[in-house]
This record gives sequence, structure tokens and C-alpha cells, in this order.
Amino acid sequence: MKPIKPWIAVDAMGGDSGPDIVIPGSLEAARQDNLGLVLVGDQEKIEQALSKQKTGDLQLEVLHAPEVVAMNDKPSEALRRKKNSSIQAAFKSVREKTAHGVVSAGNSGATLACGMFTLGRIKGIERPALASILPTEKKEPLVLVDVGANVECKPYHLIQFGLMADVFARDVLHIKNPRIGVLTIGEEEGKGNKLVLETIKLFRSSSMNFIGNVEGRDFFAGKADVVVCDGFVGNVSLKLMEGLAMSLSRILKAEVKKSLLARLGFLLGIRALKRFGRHIDYAEYGGAPLLGLNGIGIVCHGSSNSKAITNAVLMAGEFVRNRANEHLAEGLGQNQEINMFGRRPQAKNHSA
Amino acid sequence: MKPIKPWIAVDAMGGDSGPDIVIPGSLEAARQDNLGLVLVGDQEKIEQALSKQKTGDLQLEVLHAPEVVAMNDKPSEALRRKKNSSIQAAFKSVREKTAHGVVSAGNSGATLACGMFTLGRIKGIERPALASILPTEKKEPLVLVDVGANVECKPYHLIQFGLMADVFARDVLHIKNPRIGVLTIGEEEGKGNKLVLETIKLFRSSSMNFIGNVEGRDFFAGKADVVVCDGFVGNVSLKLMEGLAMSLSRILKAEVKKSLLARLGFLLGIRALKRFGRHIDYAEYGGAPLLGLNGIGIVCHGSSNSKAITNAVLMAGEFVRNRANEHLAEGLGQNQEINMFGRRPQAKNHSA
Repeated sequence: MKPIKPWIAVDAMGGDSGPDIVIPGSLEAARQDNLGLVLVGDQEKIEQALSKQKTGDLQLEVLHAPEVVAMNDKPSEALRRKKNSSIQAAFKSVREKTAHGVVSAGNSGATLACGMFTLGRIKGIERPALASILPTEKKEPLVLVDVGANVECKPYHLIQFGLMADVFARDVLHIKNPRIGVLTIGEEEGKGNKLVLETIKLFRSSSMNFIGNVEGRDFFAGKADVVVCDGFVGNVSLKLMEGLAMSLSRILKAEVKKSLLARLGFLLGIRALKRFGRHIDYAEYGGAPLLGLNGIGIVCHGSSNSKAITNAVLMAGEFVRNRANEHLAEGLGQNQEINMFGRRPQAKNHSA
Repeated sequence: MKPIKPWIAVDAMGGDSGPDIVIPGSLEAARQDNLGLVLVGDQEKIEQALSKQKTGDLQLEVLHAPEVVAMNDKPSEALRRKKNSSIQAAFKSVREKTAHGVVSAGNSGATLACGMFTLGRIKGIERPALASILPTEKKEPLVLVDVGANVECKPYHLIQFGLMADVFARDVLHIKNPRIGVLTIGEEEGKGNKLVLETIKLFRSSSMNFIGNVEGRDFFAGKADVVVCDGFVGNVSLKLMEGLAMSLSRILKAEVKKSLLARLGFLLGIRALKRFGRHIDYAEYGGAPLLGLNGIGIVCHGSSNSKAITNAVLMAGEFVRNRANEHLAEGLGQNQEINMFGRRPQAKNHSA
């Protein structure tokens, strides 16, 4: 098969710092992995940011889009009223096949909505899902899916989330035979709510490498490669981890300020702390992929630094190059049982 | 009103270390707060553990219960087959009014089941709920409810959880006008699943000090005093925090081992770390109260140390002395709107 050269449309206006962070970050990815870039947004601002960079060896295009979606714009409003926004223009360039995927650090809700509306879903996928890539104590990260695209789910949605994350883990994270688990409240069989218990049954009858129940305490220990949950539980979990990490860092800093001895101690130990920080650095994986679209969408944190943008663009490149969406479509076609779950909901009222 | 002398029935056989941890921990609480203790379990083992302690000034009774519920016994089996277990005997002593409440570090599921079955619910309470007391960056802790007693909930269950936790926060934690929030996935109105959105409406029409949406990232910052969620989401959250804290501590320890400089640094900074540890020390609050019973049940972690047991017994004492259950019953009686939610479910299918 002919190798693909991935072209990634980057929302240059996205994120708290806009082109000054997004552009250097994207160029670095293009350089590292020989990617083509479509830089989308205010042409003048993009060219200004580009003028500070060396770009001679890179394949770049600039796509002018005068409107910007603000962080507090409602997704539905952004979709309807800002048709010339950088986010929408980026997804349109994928629909028109001038790019393969989109990376945006802008308004997440608007990015999800534009992605779904503009690109549509892969045939057979009922609900695209947002995955988050979390660090673990092992070498491999953990894929948590869904983290907020679908707050009300049925068991056949959750099994599709698992299938999509399975392909993502193989093709993009290069995990060989991803171990898939369902997030619940105990190790033993029968622990969970109705949704989870019914979902577990469906997974057991699928051809995936299903390892059963996973609890929150297993996330970081690396017990599973993919953990499936509904988007409400996933989003609560994600924000809880974020909050705990932020609070711990605030508490530690305050404690260190209280004593000269402690300050000296931490100065001496700073290298260990930095190594430790790398373990929990979200920038290591860059962004959250929206799985199930006819194309690719990677949603980055608004406060992304340029390293996070680089890694998100590299992730999009891997996704394209390794034909993850084709593999997903093939998997759906071959795997009749899963395809069926996508079309015919069954046993909805099965009791816990 | 005549002051009450609280009598607490302690499951002496509970926890990973049994009487050797539980008995000294309970005696310390009895001494600090002038509590009476009923020590329940194998008489010989209890007397052996007591023989190592000074008990002259304390009011103690020993209640012989020859059977022990193992940590892996199924709750329903423990309830049916081990009628002479220390857990069941402890709850029976409350039913028979020789004690006011129970503290157990044994099998949590069995403790919940025995508590509900033996004591029954306060009139008007549909579902007892398990609350967890979490440290925050502020002086006051956070009450998260439900953390696992009810995996399928309706809005009127959640509002009752809020009411119970409100009374607990006032009477036991001495928080004056507890700020109550609902756990969801965004600050803005309209963010959440159907259960949460309907619950928020009910809270808004109640007389509680309701502050609206709370996200996981707000837990430790101390935005709310009580956070309400269903038992599935609450249990997932609790185990996630536990897992993250354990992993961080493993990673830090491993990093520190890697370098002499880091080790030296941390040795110098150890006082700061210890102060920091106090912030996140679960033993500070001792146990999770099961709210809504005709009596009191405090569930402790199996790995509780004697400080945790002391604090759990003190918590039970506060609960009795401040007549929390009477206040709850009064609140239910006065607060017609909430009482009504307990009896007549309404607007179940209200759409998000």
C-alpha cells in the first residue's frame, strides 16, 4: 500500500496563547515527522508568527479564517453563527480533503460539535467518543474513553467506545494487544450499575482482549490499556484527577515556603521532582482524540504549551499514517457482533 | 435537654489487625471524650488485648460473639449464616438499646448490609447512604455522599443524601451553614446527565444552602462542604483518589531512591512532607458514616491504624451526643417538600 503523507489542519487561533504557541509547536511536529500543515486562522497573525520561524524545509499552507470562537462561546452558537471561524474552517478542509485531520486547543465543546457536524461519523459508529490518554506507572499510557462527549449511554455505545479505543491504542500508541476493561466499583463479578453489568456481558461475547472490571485505583498501576465508561463518569474522573494534582502541587509549594530547611531540601531534590513531573505531564500526550469521525480531531487543553501542541500534531500524523480509521471501519465490517450492537439495542432493562 | 452519654459498640474483630489495633484505638477515644464502650467479638481475645491496657477509669462492657465475618465473605451470606458474628452482634446491641452506634473496620459490604437489616431506616428516608469525609486545602473537610451504598439512584434519593449529609456536617463536623453542591461535569447550568439535571432542580426548590454545580476539580479547593452524587460515581471517585495518591507516593519513593542527592534533599525536607501528609491523612477522619439508619454505623478502612479507630469512635460519639438522627427526623418532618420527594417520585423522565 502506498504510504500516506499526513496533512494536518491546525487551528492556529486556539488556546490561551494563540499562534505564538500553536505555530512553533506545530512546525516542530512537521519537522520531526515530515507532516504537511494547513495553518488555519487570521492570515496576518499567522504570517507574523511564521516570520519568526525557520520554515524553508516544511510544506505549509495558510488558510485564512477571520472569525475566532471564544472560550466561553456556546458550541451550538459557534457552529451556527461563526461559519468562518478557524475551528470550522479547519474541519471543512478535512471534509474537502485538503487535510486529513484537525488539531485545536480552542473551545473544546465547539471543537467536538464542529467535528461531528462537519465530518460526520464513520458508518456503523453510533456515537463518536472523546478519549483521554493518561500516564501510568508503566511505560504504556492508559486510554480512558469516553471523557465527556456522551453523558447518557447504552451498553452498545460503550462497546463501540472500546472498539474505537482498541484501534487507537494499536495504531497510534503501538500497544500490541490492548487489554480492555470496564470502569466499575469492585473487582468481583456483579459489581456495578445496570449499564456497566450489561456492558460487561457484551464485552465478554466480543472478540476484544477484555480483562473485566477495572477500578479507579487500577488506573495508574497499569492494569488495563483501555478503560471504558460513559462520558459523565469519565469527565468527572478526569476533572477529579486534575483537581487532585493541582491541589497537591499547591499544598507542596505552600509547605516548602514555610521553612528554609524544606526549601533547601527540595532544591537539592529538584531533579527527582522533575523526573517525577514527567510521569504526570499531560503535555507528554498532547491531546484527546475524538474517535469515530470521518477524519481526525484532536482536542488540546486551552493552556497547552508548545510541547503539547507538537505531541498532538504528531498523534494526528500517526493516526493518518497508520490508517486507524480504515482499520476501525474494517473491524466494524468484520465484527458482525459489534456492528449489530451499533444498530440493534438489546436487553436494555436487564437487571443488576 | 438531658445530655446523653454515648455508648459505642465496637467490632473488636474488624480490620486487618483485629483487637490489637481496634482496642487501644477505641480506649483512647473513650478516654478523650468520656464514652462508654461495648467491645464485641471473641471474649478471650478481647480480654487478652485489654490486659495490656490501662482501663481503670473507663466504662467498658465485653459482648461475646464467637463468629467472624471474613473480608471476602459475601454480605448476604454473612447476614444469613453468621448470626453470631461480631458485626451482627454489634448492630443487635444498638437495636436492643445497649449501645447507640457501631464502629467496624471489618468487611464493609457486610457492615452496610447488617446495619440496614438490623437497625432499619429512619422513617421517611428511602435509602441510607454512605458518606466519605475528604480532606481539602481549607480547614473544613468535604462530605462526599453517596460513595457506594446505592448504585442506581433517582433524583429524590440524591436530595435525601444531601439532607442527611447537611445534618451530619452541622452536628458532627460543626460546619455552620454547609454549602451543598451536586457533582457534575461543568460549571454552567445545563451541564450533566438527566439524573443530575433533575436533582439540581429539586435542590433549588429546597431550603438547603445549595450552591449548584460542583466539579471534581473543586473538591480539594474547598468550594463546597457537601457534594452529592449517586453511589456508582461516588465510589469510582473515591477509588480513583485512593489510586492516584498511592501511585504518586510509589513514584516519589522510587525517584528518591534513584539519587543520593534527592535522598538527602528529602531527608532535609521531611518535616514539610510530614505536614503535607497530614493534609491527606484519611485517619484524620477515621471512617465513613452510614447515614439514615435508626442508629449509627461507621465503616472504617480495613487497614485502619489505631488513630483512625480513635477518630471513628469519636465521630460516633459526636453523632450521638449532638442528636444528629433526631435532627434529621425533625428536618424530614418539617421540610414537607423533601419528605414528599421521599415518597412520591416525580418528573422522572424529564429530559436533559
